[in-house]
Amino acid sequence: MHIFITNDDGYLSPGLATLTALMRAYGDVTVVAPEDGQSGMSNALTVKVPVRMRCVREEPGLAVYAASGTPTDCVKLAMNTLFADRKPDLLVSGINHGSNVSVAVIYSGTLGAAAEGTLYGVRSIGFSLTDYSREADFEGCRVYIPKIMAQVLAQPFAPHVFLNVNIPNLPAGAIKGIRLGRQTKGAWSEEYEKRIDPTGTPYYWLTGQFVNHEPDAPEADENIVQQGYIAIVPHHVDMTEYCELQRLSKLWRF
Amino acid sequence: MHIFITNDDGYLSPGLATLTALMRAYGDVTVVAPEDGQSGMSNALTVKVPVRMRCVREEPGLAVYAASGTPTDCVKLAMNTLFADRKPDLLVSGINHGSNVSVAVIYSGTLGAAAEGTLYGVRSIGFSLTDYSREADFEGCRVYIPKIMAQVLAQPFAPHVFLNVNIPNLPAGAIKGIRLGRQTKGAWSEEYEKRIDPTGTPYYWLTGQFVNHEPDAPEADENIVQQGYIAIVPHHVDMTEYCELQRLSKLWRF
Repeated sequence: MHIFITNDDGYLSPGLATLTALMRAYGDVTVVAPEDGQSGMSNALTVKVPVRMRCVREEPGLAVYAASGTPTDCVKLAMNTLFADRKPDLLVSGINHGSNVSVAVIYSGTLGAAAEGTLYGVRSIGFSLTDYSREADFEGCRVYIPKIMAQVLAQPFAPHVFLNVNIPNLPAGAIKGIRLGRQTKGAWSEEYEKRIDPTGTPYYWLTGQFVNHEPDAPEADENIVQQGYIAIVPHHVDMTEYCELQRLSKLWRF
Repeated sequence: MHIFITNDDGYLSPGLATLTALMRAYGDVTVVAPEDGQSGMSNALTVKVPVRMRCVREEPGLAVYAASGTPTDCVKLAMNTLFADRKPDLLVSGINHGSNVSVAVIYSGTLGAAAEGTLYGVRSIGFSLTDYSREADFEGCRVYIPKIMAQVLAQPFAPHVFLNVNIPNLPAGAIKGIRLGRQTKGAWSEEYEKRIDPTGTPYYWLTGQFVNHEPDAPEADENIVQQGYIAIVPHHVDMTEYCELQRLSKLWRF
């Protein structure tokens, strides 16, 4: 197996180091990750300036590259250069420092990279640990990611799908297990802290609280994680709302 | 009606000016748009630096603000400041200079802003003209956007949905009509132009060709536009792949 690893926290993040160490058990690993933190970059593309990529480490079974752009840029650039002749067998993104449940899927660089993988026909998985700190404890990840890999390799998911795996910030022994689920309905509120600069001009820092719109739905990923389980959600890039398409097709006349 | 306009080409773009002129017929308009071009910024959030917003024009029935961040930042910032006490009745984003059919929905700042609107419970529409030039001719938009608005106001779409409207780059008289459709399956290929800088180091410009994976599907938005019709696709932010969730739930055991 040849495994392509990327992330949105940058090539020096502890989460990436953990994932790299885990994935080397399955084959050769190529890392192409951002030079610096790219959290919240979604599926953003770098279009105004060119991107660059440099090799920062190379040894048998492992090559690590740092790229100047977003996570999506990393995937596109790697697929068009390093993997131009032979696609990787799997793309894994992360391990993100912080939760990516619910509507975070549309903002997350970790999952933006996984979505991009599917567009190249590469099965892709985004891993996130629900702890934002750089000193996060990845013990639960080290125990459970191999269990998820075993299942994925034995019975692969559909190639147009990317998996969103969220691991609760608990000691490995306290994690209750792994559950499949769906994207929780929710949104952020109270999102800015207003400050005044020395010239008297206001500026705004993004903050915000996540509001769960369905706290009682057992199959919603946020609730799965809150109950101490690892949540796995299969996602795809087709954002069409088919029910509404059907309804409007009958209703509207132009 | 109070209408909130944003875009990803920046507050000075001709597409925004066209949309603003059209929307003033329906009520008061507030524009909060990026200071500069933010194409390809997807749902990206500005998290490392604060954002700022300044009023650049104010007259009866119209206020225009420029903000330092992404299209999604514009929506979040406006909803938490200008619209904190009273939500707008409608969000319109665009008119984008360039097509946003198919998987462009995941990269587009225009549609990122529309997606964000739905998360605040505001009905949102992204408009795009399939002409990238700054000198694009918006005549077709001026004729057809009022027809779409009449239908939307008479029989509103579901509030969790945002509409993706793509208008072909044709004289108004050559546009054949308006059709509802779905997101086309497709992706970009041959995506980078490699160049060498004066120090001998390579750098890469994003380019690429869109490849339509279903050129014969009449209901796919790219094909609707290619046939000379305006395509309207209802989108939502739930990216769960429910069929695969059901399949894997039966198949996988942890």
